[in-house]
Amino acid sequence: MPLSVLILGNGSALPTVNTHQTAQILASGNELFLIDCGEGTQVELRRHSVKIQRINHVFISHLHGDHFFGLVGLLSSMHLLGRTNKIHIYGPEGLDEIVQIQFRKGGSKLSFEMEFHAINSAGMVLFENKNLIVETLPLNHRIPCFGFLFKEKIGLRKLKANALKEFDIPKHKRKGITEGEDFINDEGERIPNEKITNAPADPVSYAYCSDTAYSEKLIELIKGIDLLYHESTFLESEKERAKKTFHSTAKQAAQVANLAGVGKLLLGHFSNRYRSKERFLMESRQIFKQSFIAEEGVEFKV
Amino acid sequence: MPLSVLILGNGSALPTVNTHQTAQILASGNELFLIDCGEGTQVELRRHSVKIQRINHVFISHLHGDHFFGLVGLLSSMHLLGRTNKIHIYGPEGLDEIVQIQFRKGGSKLSFEMEFHAINSAGMVLFENKNLIVETLPLNHRIPCFGFLFKEKIGLRKLKANALKEFDIPKHKRKGITEGEDFINDEGERIPNEKITNAPADPVSYAYCSDTAYSEKLIELIKGIDLLYHESTFLESEKERAKKTFHSTAKQAAQVANLAGVGKLLLGHFSNRYRSKERFLMESRQIFKQSFIAEEGVEFKV
Repeated sequence: MPLSVLILGNGSALPTVNTHQTAQILASGNELFLIDCGEGTQVELRRHSVKIQRINHVFISHLHGDHFFGLVGLLSSMHLLGRTNKIHIYGPEGLDEIVQIQFRKGGSKLSFEMEFHAINSAGMVLFENKNLIVETLPLNHRIPCFGFLFKEKIGLRKLKANALKEFDIPKHKRKGITEGEDFINDEGERIPNEKITNAPADPVSYAYCSDTAYSEKLIELIKGIDLLYHESTFLESEKERAKKTFHSTAKQAAQVANLAGVGKLLLGHFSNRYRSKERFLMESRQIFKQSFIAEEGVEFKV
Repeated sequence: MPLSVLILGNGSALPTVNTHQTAQILASGNELFLIDCGEGTQVELRRHSVKIQRINHVFISHLHGDHFFGLVGLLSSMHLLGRTNKIHIYGPEGLDEIVQIQFRKGGSKLSFEMEFHAINSAGMVLFENKNLIVETLPLNHRIPCFGFLFKEKIGLRKLKANALKEFDIPKHKRKGITEGEDFINDEGERIPNEKITNAPADPVSYAYCSDTAYSEKLIELIKGIDLLYHESTFLESEKERAKKTFHSTAKQAAQVANLAGVGKLLLGHFSNRYRSKERFLMESRQIFKQSFIAEEGVEFKV
């Protein structure tokens, strides 16, 4: 089941005509997970033809506005468009009150149920289905803030096309075989699993880390993952400002990626002070070659 | 002091890539008044080069999201850009809580003071300075909702260029003369005010009426004003839906304009169901010729 990440916004604090605040869609099979939801995210979802009613899980990293001010508008639009499916919202304590008061004071009763799940520590399992598990990661920001680690599970083995006929495998045995069992035929002969199945694709994993100061705590937790999104609000020339505001530089993001030995690094959450993103890439690639800008509207395979 | 209205958004409920939710800037001299503030208004302010720190007064008609979801983001950006001036926010009861909880839960202490003024009836004077007075208008919507009437005051009379010399008017007399006094010279001779001054421009007035069902209550209150913005969410073919949802049709907006004998009518708050605005204009002009679409990005002189 391929995982992909669509970038809806890569800007930090101030939204502009051309730069949108943080939001991403992680797609896993039919599930769409929304990660953070800055103001105007619903319009970016429309721009990139994402079907909003297919989003059943929203993950909010922290309660700074550029990461959640768009949530209430998105929920309102889901309601106006007749949503009936429950939505799960994962975020720091207080997010439920923030959302609910806005509908309550406006006399709106939503057409669907919202279930809030308060995040209060790293290492929490927020979501799990047969394909995927989502856990919180510890970030180091001015207020409680959590990253999200999306880990695919090992898939089922695939029966080889010719094996069913060749070994006359009955239907009721197939499930066990895809889970790794050998096949024992009517003559009592054991056919090894590898002979009749192909291995599933390697499970992949994605970590979303925004907003955070440079933190070595992360490294063990994201060791060897395929794709890391790590904020890089500033360039190294603004290292002191990054430290003071609990953000990272491109160099620091690259150091984390390098020490954790991840596959690829996506840089984002850029401060408005920089016109071009090219310098972020150059700075990061000096330390970690597989660095990329989290360009808005681009879908990255994990 | 010329009044003008800049339209930032003319859409209703659902924002799209090309249609923005309700927001307007009324400019009176150096004062910028923001009227309603749907999601993404701060970006539209930027798009149209409005200096956000010059906004000191925000008027919110009611607590449906398409009229206020952008307020907290705008305030947040004012803070991030270092605002120190106090801002006055006029809106229905509950707006203060909605705004404050979002900053409180995120641990943000704003760099400027917000003063909330609760609107709980029509006919309230919300604001007054030497040029202008702002009063609430009664609207008929599903939840408490108020329009805003901006009335210029009669300006000072202008001293004629040649009168100062001709009649040797001393400095300390000039203020009284611009307020309408006659001038009595050293010989005790009375010079009538009209001889030494010109009349000021006629004061103009603007009414903002969104959202509302057709309401004849408005007519007396906006009699003869120069410019009326009246919502027309639907066409007359959707009259029943308009009634049910407490909105107006273009024809109804035109009827109000016609009965009140206003100068011009601006139509807005269009439902997303209509692709073209041409039909609103045609419908309205059959009853009230001076009808115009509140086109986004256009500044209308009052």
